[in-house]
Amino acid sequence: MVNENTIYIGKKPLMSYVLAALRQINGDEGTVVIKARGKSISRAVDVAEILRHQFVQNASVEDIEISTEKLTSDEGRETNVSSIEILISLGEDDQAGPAGSGIDN
Amino acid sequence: MVNENTIYIGKKPLMSYVLAALRQINGDEGTVVIKARGKSISRAVDVAEILRHQFVQNASVEDIEISTEKLTSDEGRETNVSSIEILISLGEDDQAGPAGSGIDN
Repeated sequence: MVNENTIYIGKKPLMSYVLAALRQINGDEGTVVIKARGKSISRAVDVAEILRHQFVQNASVEDIEISTEKLTSDEGRETNVSSIEILISLGEDDQAGPAGSGIDN
Repeated sequence: MVNENTIYIGKKPLMSYVLAALRQINGDEGTVVIKARGKSISRAVDVAEILRHQFVQNASVEDIEISTEKLTSDEGRETNVSSIEILISLGEDDQAGPAGSGIDN
């Protein structure tokens, strides 16, 4: 997955990530990757779901990958942490929904 | 996705879900669906990652779906909650590798 279009989910209010993702998917590439680690994973799914159901009706989940990253603490101890990457893009098919019908093909 | 082979992630210790998933994937069908809602979503990813990296080296993630479920509270109020379903199955190819190197792309 590409890096430039990636939104990393942290501890800011959920809507700030939704808006960042919205800006990204409405850009030239028409895609956004939402990425998170550990406990933020559930928030990444929230962002993806809010984005595609409430803001971009013709967006669809292209791919989801999960993996394990090794983090090293300040004391040099290694821990495993799960991560997720959700790739969302503007779909080909124009799902005519009530809110998102303003997009022409 | 099928229902009988589904493990629902709640608040028990992580390892009890890993063991339940292990039992399921080693059964006749060779598949398990790990399902969670809300904050448990990150734990579902943990269970999937521990299962395929530490217990079943030839298991691979076949499919991941995210969705939104409507919950109704006792007072009749509706809230949206994100959910995830992770389908893992025993792969055809026997990835022989040292423990923990089995991250598929």
